[in-house]
Amino acid sequence: MKNIKIYGFGVVAQGFHNYLVENKEEERLKTVIIKNPTKSRKEINAIIETTNDNTARDKDMDVIVELISSSEEAFGIVVENLEIGKKVISANKKLIAENLATIINTEQENGGAFLYEGAVCGSIPIIRILNDLYANEPITEIKGVFNGSSNYILTQIFNEGVSYDEALIQAQKLGFAEANPTSDVGGFDALYKLVIATTHAYGVIVKPEDVLTIGIEAISVLDVEFAKSKNLKIKLIAKATLLNGKLSLSVLPTFVKRDNDLFNVENEYNAVLVESENIGQQFYKGKGAGSLPTGSVVYSDLKAIDNGYKYSYKKLEHATFQLDNNRKIDVVVSVKKAIDIERLTFDELYPIGSDGKQYLARVDVEELNENKRTLQQQGVSIIAVEDENLISELKTSFLREGVLTT
Amino acid sequence: MKNIKIYGFGVVAQGFHNYLVENKEEERLKTVIIKNPTKSRKEINAIIETTNDNTARDKDMDVIVELISSSEEAFGIVVENLEIGKKVISANKKLIAENLATIINTEQENGGAFLYEGAVCGSIPIIRILNDLYANEPITEIKGVFNGSSNYILTQIFNEGVSYDEALIQAQKLGFAEANPTSDVGGFDALYKLVIATTHAYGVIVKPEDVLTIGIEAISVLDVEFAKSKNLKIKLIAKATLLNGKLSLSVLPTFVKRDNDLFNVENEYNAVLVESENIGQQFYKGKGAGSLPTGSVVYSDLKAIDNGYKYSYKKLEHATFQLDNNRKIDVVVSVKKAIDIERLTFDELYPIGSDGKQYLARVDVEELNENKRTLQQQGVSIIAVEDENLISELKTSFLREGVLTT
Repeated sequence: MKNIKIYGFGVVAQGFHNYLVENKEEERLKTVIIKNPTKSRKEINAIIETTNDNTARDKDMDVIVELISSSEEAFGIVVENLEIGKKVISANKKLIAENLATIINTEQENGGAFLYEGAVCGSIPIIRILNDLYANEPITEIKGVFNGSSNYILTQIFNEGVSYDEALIQAQKLGFAEANPTSDVGGFDALYKLVIATTHAYGVIVKPEDVLTIGIEAISVLDVEFAKSKNLKIKLIAKATLLNGKLSLSVLPTFVKRDNDLFNVENEYNAVLVESENIGQQFYKGKGAGSLPTGSVVYSDLKAIDNGYKYSYKKLEHATFQLDNNRKIDVVVSVKKAIDIERLTFDELYPIGSDGKQYLARVDVEELNENKRTLQQQGVSIIAVEDENLISELKTSFLREGVLTT
Repeated sequence: MKNIKIYGFGVVAQGFHNYLVENKEEERLKTVIIKNPTKSRKEINAIIETTNDNTARDKDMDVIVELISSSEEAFGIVVENLEIGKKVISANKKLIAENLATIINTEQENGGAFLYEGAVCGSIPIIRILNDLYANEPITEIKGVFNGSSNYILTQIFNEGVSYDEALIQAQKLGFAEANPTSDVGGFDALYKLVIATTHAYGVIVKPEDVLTIGIEAISVLDVEFAKSKNLKIKLIAKATLLNGKLSLSVLPTFVKRDNDLFNVENEYNAVLVESENIGQQFYKGKGAGSLPTGSVVYSDLKAIDNGYKYSYKKLEHATFQLDNNRKIDVVVSVKKAIDIERLTFDELYPIGSDGKQYLARVDVEELNENKRTLQQQGVSIIAVEDENLISELKTSFLREGVLTT
């Protein structure tokens, strides 16, 4: 039985530790490294060391489980241990998404292993499924609800009728959102997960900053009312699509119809829809966060390492395409003042309502990605309308009501 | 690279062969055993042998892929090869469900491996997920749509308004149902899958004949109309529940509400809902049949075997409970003639409609399992109502309408 060292002992690490105890493997855990010795935490048998020095190579350990919050410090722990051929487990999505090429190289050159099921969609074993079942299967689209905090907030807004601010406070109280919620509600957490999934689904390593990412902060009451009037919900959807050899990625608030599997993904749940050439459509749903749900997949990574498993990254050798932002998308755009829309670069505006504050529009992805920060500062809300039927339905209803302006 | 021999070259085997070709592993395939040399099939490079003798031990082969239709003949192929420590893959759900104890023993005593992802729910890698991710996780319920043919027929009845007979003919035309559809529409195919999943989910080996199994043949127009009037659908649901140390299994046509994930599982799709203590609820949906969807998981079994993987059957060592049929369930029962209901042993009858042909009732599982053949011969239709809210809603509406008889 191989020795284990854990870096960090927060929510996920404690869930992972539960599984070690339950499976009578606690004695494998030799050391836990923490930062703050005064924090209250569960009692364990392993030696707890307090250190800020994360540069040590863990020569006497076999499996390093990295579960700290800082992605910069995690980088040192992961890479230096992979350099000496260790088996490393991490759930740090930011670390992985930003450094995947380096980490994979270091793993492969030195004969170690690096697993990270806990980094993507909590309890859903989507990385293992993509790496194993879809190793040779051409995927046309992978999309889903990848962030539990945003989804909890949206569920509260839609099902309980509370405001965005109230829902956020509630999410923080329940531990579904951080004190600083930017990574969740800004779409970055979902973005990192999408970038990692894309490597396995398409064999392409994408830079997070190249992906059009808009969070849920700017969603307006107008948007919610519009959605409800059409029997739609708004979900924060992370999506990677391969069409005619062009790979496009985005994280966007998106109108979702009732017959879509993502419509019923509520609260802290995550879900993934995979569409592929031979297998057809697959849908996976499970808890996206929490001590035991995430701890369970970290423990399953340990079992996989015990069995000599590592990701094959089969598609990385073969991909003949890369990220392409040269395309247009359909959105509903809402502005604070009617005049604002004039200054924005949207095409084919179809006004919704008569006060000039909300429009169905088309927008260039490259351009939107460049301007998104400015738009966010101006409180402009952008919600994707990706369902072709819904777009035509909306346009038809504009034509019928005589408000077509182009 | 290990040598492969395939028994049978039908729909799934041809799909599997596609993956071998695509992955440049076709040369591993040495022999394909077929029964009927006159049948037209795709051209392949391997030697095709025609034989009815399936008793030979395949000493010169490393991996035996058993994809024939007869479960009796398959038993010989699987067990004799496991006896000499070979790696065997099968998708024969009847063979596996009826002989799991023997097969697991033979595998474990002789150092071979036996994988069968293709036997349960087509493209959904549910066995791997149960065996690996849920190896130590207490499952409270596993249920789902496990038979694509029945689900296709029910979808046609509900969405297209066709009759059962028309839907069945259409399913047969499209290759979703066999010429003799008994195993599908009688619920046996779903039953075998449930029994296999139960071994991994609970560590209990159940005899198929002990499980209350009712198919979709007797579903009446009354049932469909009743469902539609209440915004429900009828799905053939396979279910295993562990409650207070009692394990109960059933395959039953069941009313499903719109907010249930199974409501949107349509046509040939399969789906599995897993509810467990620590991970919460997980939902998996994918194509339940077809050459490439099923072929893909058979190929993933081959990859797993190449990597030295075998099922751990972790829970088989620990289960402290067994199948218990001592319980009652709520059903809607429909009879051909009003008088019939008198002779049946249902409790707490609440009439639906005024012609005495349809009732909400409670029934003892043990008793129903003993009498189900007689009831089926009399054309009595039984549909489970498992949603507590739906049961109270129905009872309340009876009370309000003054038709309560007990």
